[in-house]
Amino acid sequence: MKVIMDLCVVPIGVGVSLSEYIVECHKVLKDSGLKTELHAYGTIIEGEWDAVFAAVKKCHEAVHEKGAPRITTTIKVGTRVDRDQTMEDKVRSVEENL
Amino acid sequence: MKVIMDLCVVPIGVGVSLSEYIVECHKVLKDSGLKTELHAYGTIIEGEWDAVFAAVKKCHEAVHEKGAPRITTTIKVGTRVDRDQTMEDKVRSVEENL
Amino acid sequence: MKVIMDLCVVPIGVGVSLSEYIVECHKVLKDSGLKTELHAYGTIIEGEWDAVFAAVKKCHEAVHEKGAPRITTTIKVGTRVDRDQTMEDKVRSVEENL
Amino acid sequence: MKVIMDLCVVPIGVGVSLSEYIVECHKVLKDSGLKTELHAYGTIIEGEWDAVFAAVKKCHEAVHEKGAPRITTTIKVGTRVDRDQTMEDKVRSVEENL
Repeated sequence: MKVIMDLCVVPIGVGVSLSEYIVECHKVLKDSGLKTELHAYGTIIEGEWDAVFAAVKKCHEAVHEKGAPRITTTIKVGTRVDRDQTMEDKVRSVEENL
Repeated sequence: MKVIMDLCVVPIGVGVSLSEYIVECHKVLKDSGLKTELHAYGTIIEGEWDAVFAAVKKCHEAVHEKGAPRITTTIKVGTRVDRDQTMEDKVRSVEENL
Repeated sequence: MKVIMDLCVVPIGVGVSLSEYIVECHKVLKDSGLKTELHAYGTIIEGEWDAVFAAVKKCHEAVHEKGAPRITTTIKVGTRVDRDQTMEDKVRSVEENL
Repeated sequence: MKVIMDLCVVPIGVGVSLSEYIVECHKVLKDSGLKTELHAYGTIIEGEWDAVFAAVKKCHEAVHEKGAPRITTTIKVGTRVDRDQTMEDKVRSVEENL
């Protein structure tokens, strides 16, 4: 089952600047080999369910290891069984209709 | 790693009434034995990371099997390594400060 | 246009314990007179669009005033024009199908 | 109060293909003159609180008018009072740490 995910990890209790911690998550995603795209409020990830969610777990582990005592994460995740769709398809289908 | 999750599964392409599909997800959660609490915009789930996310995957599988061609899910998930906290603790800590 | 909202306000840069700040938001909601219900990962709010979103803005203002330099909030918000539905209806429609 | 928002509008009860409806929302955003950036699971919007949330309301109105009986929307919204930050700053601060 393929998923397209929007992942936004928020470390808590580490002060007001979060990028140093969020970078740990991006290292995990890069190592995962998954297709990703960073935006201003999270990262889009595309891949098989188990691989994507394994990466999310490793993100939490890495951000805790970096020193964050608490994390709250917001995830949007889409699956479809009617047809295959990539992250590029989703953007294109809106742009073409504009 | 223990998590507290807020799970909101939205089947797409099945008409305007979703409860028949969402019930499939609740059957999965019930069978999982995880601690859950239904609210008006999702379900709170508490448990170990792997067990909770395995249940989320089964929810998607069950809702697709029921006939939904597409699903979009919104998840909030919290982990903390500084101390143990239950879903009741989270509500209580706000109520006590009110 | 009536809305049912799930609101989760996360103050950033105030340490690991957030309830003291989140309580400021709950005072705002109480003063608003809106129908609300607290759960372990947010608060359900029901009311007219403008009143509900005005309360959300006041929450951000109150939490900043309490001392939080940064806030990230996750909102789920539903509207429907086919029929009226309360937060209790939403829970009941799932429970009746279980 | 400036906000950076991630907006994801999901029309319900209109079948499996949503882009035709989501486009109505993008027309609203374009007309608003707000700074926006489309990604695969929503749109980033930057601007003053009132202008951004007025656009979100108009999106719901436009998508209902197009024929969607029901909408569920997921919003992430960030505010900060310590310093000014743009959507480009947020991406850059992560990329520079990578």
